[in-house]
Amino acid sequence: MGIIVQKFGGTSVGSPERIKNVANRVIQEVSAGNQVVVVVSAMGKTTDHLVTLAAEITSKPSKREMDMLLSTGEQISIALLSMAIQERGFESVSYTGWQAGIETEAIHSNARIENIQVSKVSQSLSEGKIVVVAGFQGISSSGDITTLGRGGSDTTAVALAAALKADKCDIYTDVTGVFTTDPRYVPTARKLQAISYDEMLELANLGAGVLHPRAVEFAKNFEMPLEVRSSLELENGTIIEEEVSVEKNLVVRGIAFEDQITRVTVCGLPNELHTLSTIFGTLAKNGVNVDIIIQSTTNQNQTNISFSVKTPDLHDAIAVLENNREALSFEEIQHETGLAKVSIVGSGMVSNPGVAADMFQVLAQENIQVKMVSTSEIKVSTVVEQENMVKAVEALHEAFNLSAVEEEKVKVRS
Amino acid sequence: MGIIVQKFGGTSVGSPERIKNVANRVIQEVSAGNQVVVVVSAMGKTTDHLVTLAAEITSKPSKREMDMLLSTGEQISIALLSMAIQERGFESVSYTGWQAGIETEAIHSNARIENIQVSKVSQSLSEGKIVVVAGFQGISSSGDITTLGRGGSDTTAVALAAALKADKCDIYTDVTGVFTTDPRYVPTARKLQAISYDEMLELANLGAGVLHPRAVEFAKNFEMPLEVRSSLELENGTIIEEEVSVEKNLVVRGIAFEDQITRVTVCGLPNELHTLSTIFGTLAKNGVNVDIIIQSTTNQNQTNISFSVKTPDLHDAIAVLENNREALSFEEIQHETGLAKVSIVGSGMVSNPGVAADMFQVLAQENIQVKMVSTSEIKVSTVVEQENMVKAVEALHEAFNLSAVEEEKVKVRS
Repeated sequence: MGIIVQKFGGTSVGSPERIKNVANRVIQEVSAGNQVVVVVSAMGKTTDHLVTLAAEITSKPSKREMDMLLSTGEQISIALLSMAIQERGFESVSYTGWQAGIETEAIHSNARIENIQVSKVSQSLSEGKIVVVAGFQGISSSGDITTLGRGGSDTTAVALAAALKADKCDIYTDVTGVFTTDPRYVPTARKLQAISYDEMLELANLGAGVLHPRAVEFAKNFEMPLEVRSSLELENGTIIEEEVSVEKNLVVRGIAFEDQITRVTVCGLPNELHTLSTIFGTLAKNGVNVDIIIQSTTNQNQTNISFSVKTPDLHDAIAVLENNREALSFEEIQHETGLAKVSIVGSGMVSNPGVAADMFQVLAQENIQVKMVSTSEIKVSTVVEQENMVKAVEALHEAFNLSAVEEEKVKVRS
Repeated sequence: MGIIVQKFGGTSVGSPERIKNVANRVIQEVSAGNQVVVVVSAMGKTTDHLVTLAAEITSKPSKREMDMLLSTGEQISIALLSMAIQERGFESVSYTGWQAGIETEAIHSNARIENIQVSKVSQSLSEGKIVVVAGFQGISSSGDITTLGRGGSDTTAVALAAALKADKCDIYTDVTGVFTTDPRYVPTARKLQAISYDEMLELANLGAGVLHPRAVEFAKNFEMPLEVRSSLELENGTIIEEEVSVEKNLVVRGIAFEDQITRVTVCGLPNELHTLSTIFGTLAKNGVNVDIIIQSTTNQNQTNISFSVKTPDLHDAIAVLENNREALSFEEIQHETGLAKVSIVGSGMVSNPGVAADMFQVLAQENIQVKMVSTSEIKVSTVVEQENMVKAVEALHEAFNLSAVEEEKVKVRS
């Protein structure tokens, strides 16, 4: 008994039939005595259709008008879901982003939520209504419709849950939860019963793809428990919360990986105080996202700097460097494509200093050369050859005991 | 040089290609030195698609949620038109109904505009922008999205023009103007250069179909000149304004007609003071729209009342009467289907009392029996057999000289 925010993505509301299924899931929570706010994305095909229409008009649509156009997608979903709930005999009301009081920065296509005026949603809940809110969208202080960018509906759900002081925020997806690693590659991958915000953040940023990092950050800041669960299966999903006592004994909680990585090395840079800030400042200003960075000083006057980029960004990265050759004064640029990133994540690493060494040993035993390394308090990332990626993940999954069946009891949830 | 409001319907914005054509028409007026506000409807197919989606969810959608759903149609149009204008190198901004300050009654699916807060639209015009506004929609005082019902975009355009004190409101349609009668039936039908609000109101109510009566009423109240013109042809359309001096010499300005009419006669009613109000009050309360009403008293105690309805409403009309047989205490109900209504309209009739007689004479010469008659200050309606409808219209069009070429000069407009 409490307030629950549920979020359903574009696939879950992809057809009238699926919208009716979502209505059933919503009504289950209401019948269990909860007040429910549902956040939905645009129907799967709608966004594609709208993007195609815009492309037939112009190749460079203004971001304001794209937000105006795309925000109709969620508006269609909320109206249809609200109808489906009413058809089942329950009271329901739909709200667009601006009606639900989702106030954002005045930035189009990628705005951040600044504030939520929850009075309207709260009022409707207290009147016994199921409230259906459009995800992904908000309103700027000038009254323009904005959108939140990738993963925006997740963020809407978590932010609304925080603002409403909800008991829980359920993210419904097409997977049943967060796994120790991608089960499409590693058959012994196991669904986690629980995971901490920080671990989820590392996994989300490392491409696990079930939850947008911005939404996890929001949840962490407001200590809002999340559950990632399936919109089709009834089983429990994965709880994301601050304290994950039940599985503390496992040092490594998950393994993330990503292919299409390229290492770029800028050789013969002057060994000066501002070299690093100049080079990465220039790349950032030109929109090139860099991941792992390594500096190796060869002699007193010169230094080499390596960084990893996604392979599709390689061309841009090299062009930016070449265009600034004079300012950066390097000797040459080398690069190696066909690489992949493999990372182990676990908050237990903080108190287990040998984990990185264990990881290197496992990889060495498999004859896998480590090209780059980067560590944080709760993760170790390595760059290896792409052809060794799955072999590395499998070996690490086995070595860190991730496929073992959990023996701890987790409290049963409704 | 002034402010012009243009309205384009669903067919005019039915595809990206057509939206680009509309952008051209808009830019023509801007290039002539005018400030332009464009009101658009939903793309032709969008509304049908949305209605189908709703029908797959429920057979009885709530009106609030239907308004939420359907209002996305115009929002798509405004975004795309604004992009098309920007693509041509002009500044443009789109506004939904609520953003444009269109405040309505708190009634869904058929709200009336109560007020327009024009500050946002005015501000954008003064910044040199072309303003694109969603027709058909507004916002209620409780912050809900409302729609205006049939012909709603016409009303949005006229109301905005009045609120902005625009010089003119152009209604773009798929016909080139208002005709003396329907040219699909009468080849000699002629486009009118000008017509008064009242004449247009009678023609609009009589099914001429180019302009919604509510929009004409609005224009009359605010003395806003309208022009009905083609979105494809460049020729002048028909001006609708208070004073139509140029064609005053013609008593009859147009002929409207409508098939599928049924006459219902309620026989043997008590001849009492409240008989009329009881019978038509009962029909109205049950949603049956009645057009012409005739009472004929056969003896001191009994009376017969005839009225015309659209044939598809016949079943409802009879059911309502039968259900209230006791209260109404009539003897029997007769009806005759297969009828049509033919009406002549012209403000010159006020000072020409013989016009109705002329009409009856023309019909008699053609052997056309008149089943019912109804007159107002500026129109005479007759009900005839449907098979005689076109013959009646042709004879009247000829007799009242409507196919004669206008000899008056009308000032040339841009």
